[in-house]
Amino acid sequence: MTSEQPDWIAVDWGTSHVRAWAMTNAGKIIAENGSAKGMGSLAKDEFEPALLELVEPWLSAQTTVVACGMVGARQGWKEAPYAEVPCLPFDGKTTKVETHDSRLDVHLLSGLSQMKPADVMRGEETQIAGFIAAEPDFDGVVCLPGTHTKWARISAKEVVSFQTFMSGELFACLSNHSVLRHSVAGKAWNDETFETAINDAISHPEKLAGRLFSLRADSLLHDLGNAEARARLSGLLIGAEIAAARPYWLGMDIAIIGADTLSGLYSRALELQGCAPRCPDAENLTLAGLAAAYLTLKETSS
Amino acid sequence: MTSEQPDWIAVDWGTSHVRAWAMTNAGKIIAENGSAKGMGSLAKDEFEPALLELVEPWLSAQTTVVACGMVGARQGWKEAPYAEVPCLPFDGKTTKVETHDSRLDVHLLSGLSQMKPADVMRGEETQIAGFIAAEPDFDGVVCLPGTHTKWARISAKEVVSFQTFMSGELFACLSNHSVLRHSVAGKAWNDETFETAINDAISHPEKLAGRLFSLRADSLLHDLGNAEARARLSGLLIGAEIAAARPYWLGMDIAIIGADTLSGLYSRALELQGCAPRCPDAENLTLAGLAAAYLTLKETSS
Repeated sequence: MTSEQPDWIAVDWGTSHVRAWAMTNAGKIIAENGSAKGMGSLAKDEFEPALLELVEPWLSAQTTVVACGMVGARQGWKEAPYAEVPCLPFDGKTTKVETHDSRLDVHLLSGLSQMKPADVMRGEETQIAGFIAAEPDFDGVVCLPGTHTKWARISAKEVVSFQTFMSGELFACLSNHSVLRHSVAGKAWNDETFETAINDAISHPEKLAGRLFSLRADSLLHDLGNAEARARLSGLLIGAEIAAARPYWLGMDIAIIGADTLSGLYSRALELQGCAPRCPDAENLTLAGLAAAYLTLKETSS
Repeated sequence: MTSEQPDWIAVDWGTSHVRAWAMTNAGKIIAENGSAKGMGSLAKDEFEPALLELVEPWLSAQTTVVACGMVGARQGWKEAPYAEVPCLPFDGKTTKVETHDSRLDVHLLSGLSQMKPADVMRGEETQIAGFIAAEPDFDGVVCLPGTHTKWARISAKEVVSFQTFMSGELFACLSNHSVLRHSVAGKAWNDETFETAINDAISHPEKLAGRLFSLRADSLLHDLGNAEARARLSGLLIGAEIAAARPYWLGMDIAIIGADTLSGLYSRALELQGCAPRCPDAENLTLAGLAAAYLTLKETSS
């Protein structure tokens, strides 16, 4: 039980995890909770119970819940339409979900889409909204590393264009399901190997396809250690991404928004290219984006 | 039961499957058998029973068994050393395995290794040996498509150098374990999409990292069909490989040795680059390579 009742509840509901925060109108976090009941593991009628597991202690009167992420996907709780870029990261519209429990007043945020080249995002647009709220004059690129890393060009408070890279999921697939799993097992790491691999990949990104198996062969023939193999695989994949994303970051002001360790790797990789990216706190930006949506909702309904 | 007793037994023992053929000295196949008891699923003491399950009906007197493939890996039945390129694909040496059943006289063939860039193969060298036995004057490149596709430069009956690409395993990982599995599920196929993707990938291999997620986005936004998504994923991966393997095939006589469907895709991709590859029958070449080893063994021991 929390002693103080929240004014509203912020929810970041991704594919594999969900997090909820009990918030005051002033932006103070009263309590937080989370679980592994991500969108990917839930049927439509399981979302409300999964949410109540996290937030029930915070509910007395009807409480507004603002949620971003894959919860609004077609396979999620209810489909929230995409807003098409170029557009504001939050266009003021939300999708209301009917609930059995009348104490819940749930609103889902829209994702963003781009018709050509085809691309979609759900969740990152809310972090971008939080970032633009803090830096309304930002003109540059935001990189949001994760399973599906997004690069978004920002200008005049709008998302102009964006592109998704699957490097994080490729790393997971190759380390868990391919022959490379023998070579990269464990958590050990080598910074120097990572940097060499970044440079190799950026110099010759077209050689990526031929470099992956050499990790296994170097383990067998030259006793390559797992720390080095793991760092090299990561560096080759992130390096190939940075090379392909060059039109996004070249000559741009860059902000990296994501989990600390992964953001640190992208930051180092970009520094090696002569960039000086910033890494603002990702959770703060998620909450700022959700808070901006909540305030708009409140204004609209009052 | 077979009415005729074999002179020897040929075995191709890979990571996921094993196949055995009852052979005469004249090269006639009397019987064949196979199972899913590949090297990857067996402990050291399970190889002999797995072999007996396949060949016991063929055994009366002691019979020579010649086996190639991952059965000779460190995690296999017994480690057969690598021969280091440049070298003949079969150097005349085999590794004898002790068995409980005295009717078995088992010999494993060596794999090939390359120190720089580090690379290894086990099994493909025997197909290459069979190919060179049939075409001793061949001077060109052999491409062996599979989970781990090998490109080998052949000259003066030797393997001069080789390189392994993981495109097959990448395709399997992405279609089974990544977000793309929703888009590429099924067996449907579109030739035209495959060819477009091959050309896109070869023109700009450095963009591969950014093209994968567009399959998912095109499914969501533009109703891209699974046949098209599957063919495009295959084309992007094989195209990136063909681009990276250019130093191997450019201006070369090319032979493709592998399963029919996959060999057909590599053949089409190379034809789009103006090459005219041949596709000799892979099973015949495996047997020819094993037979050449068997004849050497017989000569050495007699």
